[in-house]
This record gives sequence, C-alpha cells and structure tokens, in this order.
Amino acid sequence: MSEAAARYALAVDIGGTKVEAALVSGSGEVVQASRSRVPTGRAITRGGLEQAAADAASQALAHLAPGDSVVGVGVGSAGPVDLPSSTVAPLNMPDAAGAGFALLEQAASAPVTLALDGTCIALAEHRFGAARGARNALALVVSTGVGGGLIVDGRPARGKSGNAGHVGQLRIEPRGDGDIDAGTVEQIASGPHIVRWAQAKGWRGETGEDLARDAAAGLLLAVAAVERSAFAVGTAIANVSTLLDLDVAVIAGGFSGVSPDYIPLVAAAVREQAMLPYARTVEVRASGLDGAGPLIGAAVLAFDAAG
Amino acid sequence: MSEAAARYALAVDIGGTKVEAALVSGSGEVVQASRSRVPTGRAITRGGLEQAAADAASQALAHLAPGDSVVGVGVGSAGPVDLPSSTVAPLNMPDAAGAGFALLEQAASAPVTLALDGTCIALAEHRFGAARGARNALALVVSTGVGGGLIVDGRPARGKSGNAGHVGQLRIEPRGDGDIDAGTVEQIASGPHIVRWAQAKGWRGETGEDLARDAAAGLLLAVAAVERSAFAVGTAIANVSTLLDLDVAVIAGGFSGVSPDYIPLVAAAVREQAMLPYARTVEVRASGLDGAGPLIGAAVLAFDAAG
Repeated sequence: MSEAAARYALAVDIGGTKVEAALVSGSGEVVQASRSRVPTGRAITRGGLEQAAADAASQALAHLAPGDSVVGVGVGSAGPVDLPSSTVAPLNMPDAAGAGFALLEQAASAPVTLALDGTCIALAEHRFGAARGARNALALVVSTGVGGGLIVDGRPARGKSGNAGHVGQLRIEPRGDGDIDAGTVEQIASGPHIVRWAQAKGWRGETGEDLARDAAAGLLLAVAAVERSAFAVGTAIANVSTLLDLDVAVIAGGFSGVSPDYIPLVAAAVREQAMLPYARTVEVRASGLDGAGPLIGAAVLAFDAAG
Repeated sequence: MSEAAARYALAVDIGGTKVEAALVSGSGEVVQASRSRVPTGRAITRGGLEQAAADAASQALAHLAPGDSVVGVGVGSAGPVDLPSSTVAPLNMPDAAGAGFALLEQAASAPVTLALDGTCIALAEHRFGAARGARNALALVVSTGVGGGLIVDGRPARGKSGNAGHVGQLRIEPRGDGDIDAGTVEQIASGPHIVRWAQAKGWRGETGEDLARDAAAGLLLAVAAVERSAFAVGTAIANVSTLLDLDVAVIAGGFSGVSPDYIPLVAAAVREQAMLPYARTVEVRASGLDGAGPLIGAAVLAFDAAG
C-alpha cells in the first residue's frame, strides 16, 4: 500500500543557467526526487526557454504517485517580469524576452501563477523561513547576481508590473562615466564582480570558492573583497530599511556563504550606513531554506492562487 | 440661518518651524479660516511641543460652528515617529524626543491617530491629488528637508515603527569620511544644502528665492545648483521605483518650485539613473495640493480611523 494521495504545487524556477522544477507540498516540503533541471544560458531563445520550462515541468510531474494531484503551477523567474502579460524578459537571457507559459500550462494541465524569483524567495522566507512573523521584510540573494523580494505590511509587494524587489539594481555609488549599471549593488557585490575586483587588484584566484579559501586563510586581498561585497549589501539593506522600516533582512545565495563572517559584516555595514535609529534595528539573518527558497515560494504562489 | 452642521477632522501637522492645525472635511477641503500656526523651532522641548500642538488645535477648533462635529484628530509629524508608543522624535527638534499627544487629545476631546508627515502627504496625493488611481506611489517633499511617504499596492506603507518613506535619508553617494548623513539625498538636494553648495562655489545669493531668480536669469552656477538638486531627487526616485516598481512619483515642497524646469529635470534624471525599463516608466508629477498635503493627509488618517 502506497502513502496517502497528496496535493502538490508544481514549482518552477527560471534562471540564467537552468530551469528547475519540483513538486512541493503545502507545508513547503520539496519532493527531492522530483527536482528536475533543464539548462538555459545566455543565448537561449524565447521558444527555447518556453520549451525548457515545459520539459523541466514534465520531468517533475513524472514523480507524481497515482492519486496525487497538482493544485497549480507557480513560476518564479529571473527579472524583469511582466505580470500583466504573464511574460518574462530576464536581463541575463536577452533573446528570451517575451517568453510566456502556455506550453508549461499545457504540460501541467493546471493554471500558472507567475512572480519575480525574488518575490518567491521573500514569500518562502516569510511563510517557512527566517522572516516568519515579520510584517516588513527584505529577502536578498547574493550569488552570480544580486536579487531580492519584499514583504510590506505582511504581504508580498509586487509593484505595477511585478518587479518590486530588484535590490541588485539600486544605485549606491555615482554612475560617473560608467555604464548604466555602474554603481549598482549587483555590480559591486555579486560573486563574479567581486572576483573581478580582486583580480584587478592582483589576486590570482578564479572563483568564489578560491576567494572563500583565501579569505579563510587570511589573505588580505581576499578578505578585503569579502568585506567590499558585504559592505555594498549592507548599504543596500540600510537604504531599504530606511525606506520601508524593515523588521528583518534575510540573506540567501551561494556567495553569502563565502565566509562565516559575511552575515555579521553585512549587519555591521547596515549599522554604519543607516542614518536613522529605526533603520539600524533591522535584524540581518541568514536564510534557513538551503537554496530551496525560489521553489518553495513558487509553490506558495500556486497554493495561494488555488485558495 | 447658518449652513448645515458639518463633520470635520482636526488635522495637525508637526514640523520643525511650526505646528499647524486646521479643520478639514471628509472630501479634503481645508477650512482656511481655521488654519492656525504655533511656532516650534530647533530648541523646543518635549513639553513645549506637546503644548504647541494643543494650542494650535484649540485655535483651529474655535472655528467650529454650532452643531459641527469632530470625528477625530489626525497628526502628521516630522520624523522619526514611533507609532507603537504614539510618540515622535523629530530629527530637527532633538529636545522634543518622546513628545506625545495626551494634551492634544484632551484639547480636542477626540482620539488621535498619528503618522509620519510623509505618509500623510502620500495619503493626500493618493486620495485627492496627483497620485489618484495609482497603486504604487511615492510622494516626496523637497523643501528645507527632503521627506516622503509611500503607497504600496494601494495602501500606505508604514513599516515596523511608522517610518517608511524617509526618502531623504537614502544614501546615493558614498559617505566617505563624512558625517553619517553625508551622501544622503537630503544633504545634497534640500534647499539649504544646495544653497550652501552654490555658495561654496562662489555664488553670492543667500536663499532659495535668490537661487530661483538667478536660475531664471540663466546664471550658470544657479542653474547648476538647480540641476544638482533635481539630479539627486531623480536618483532617489529611480532607486525607489527600481525597488517598488512605482506607477507615480509626486513632488511637493517649496524648493521644487525653484524653477519651472525642476520637475522635467527630475524626470530626466530618473530616466538616466534607473537601469531597468520598468523603473524608468514611473510618471513624475508635481503635487496638485498647493502645500496642504500634510493637513489633508492627517485628516484622512482621522476619517479612516473613525470608519
């Protein structure tokens, strides 16, 4: 006799290197065996991305047991998104702009609900993670890029087109004569950018892992690189906390594990950069969701839409 | 025979130079004869500010006609505020920190509802002004300081202690070796700061009015000062629009009238500084409330609290 029939959301996370899909329960449990990945990449076309999402979905759905049901499909995507048209135009997949989810809806035979991946992460942390109980929270991912999502007064903030939470594109230094993204949080703090910064100063490593190793060994340039990333992230959190009077900022993403000091360094930068006392009291916490935030939050979308 | 008996809110606006109080109708009409001002100033004490608010309220209430009623008292205050304790601690009145509203409540014989003055302005613009119909809006005041308030998903955003909207304290340039407020929007864009900037470059004027006159006459340094203020304000709006995916940003405050070009310059700066297309589409509009936004928004607080 098998386990009792279960209700799942099909969660889909659309990113610049892969589409990931999985079955997720209403209590936020990811069915690990169902996690399915299909590669994407910078050159992927609109049709290619639509097919990749449908393929990842089909692979995940193959793990349904007899009698199990899917309440709906939740999709979190790299931004920008356009909720009114239910399409996406990710910065890091320029040829996929305008991709939609009709194929995915067919593959799953269930309605699709879309949000920014950052919104999904904020939902996941608020419902099941380090932002539980907070009425005003920022969830932030520091990885190959910097992204985020917001909970304002207990609810996810989406904005006019679904793009609220793009914390990586906040400008914290003057653009100067640089490109339009010069001086933005992501261009300072993300893993690849901080690696390039350290290389330009003479560091010989190649990757975030190299940087983690050299920082742990006390190599000054590696330590300085980690501090520079954390300071930029702390400055961003200070600004968001000043603007939204946050209870909590939750930090996820691979690069945030570059050093055990990373979260404390971010917290110290918030206190140094936030001018007003209420903004300095924001709690800075590490994610407790082990990288599954985008999928769990996408599932929350689907369960909430199903009512 | 007098006019029919009316229902009013008693609106109170607490600022660094004065407390203003007035009767305001449910449709946002300020009873002009009732507008009453009591001076405050940087040296005012907590008791002094509490008495000033009560005095301004009493003067405004003296304009009630027989049969008129007051549904409640709405108070907008210079920030920071602390909604959980219903007290204020304005930056520009340091000795008044902790001031509360028991005297005011007695004077009006009606319950007091408090918010940040920026939240009041956002409420007023959203209900009666240039942000009507917008679901996501920033209202911003450029005057002796720079302040603001937010509408997120159709509702005023307050944050954990009521301080959401402090756009003037966003950091848009590095602090460097400066004070903690160096590099914040207010320290670049406010009237007094931009006057000091121009003076440091050799400009001979003294006031915002002098700057307006010299900019109108085409004096390069005055024009540059106006552009510098507008660029900082546009940078702030670009950041808020990136973070919250705004429909509209509404600009009020005396300094925003320094030049007929001011609003268009701000709008141009938003387009130059916002990296993502959705953030560049925010509409930048001048306030239509003629300086009465704080009082009108305070009245909205009282009417909404009265149900």
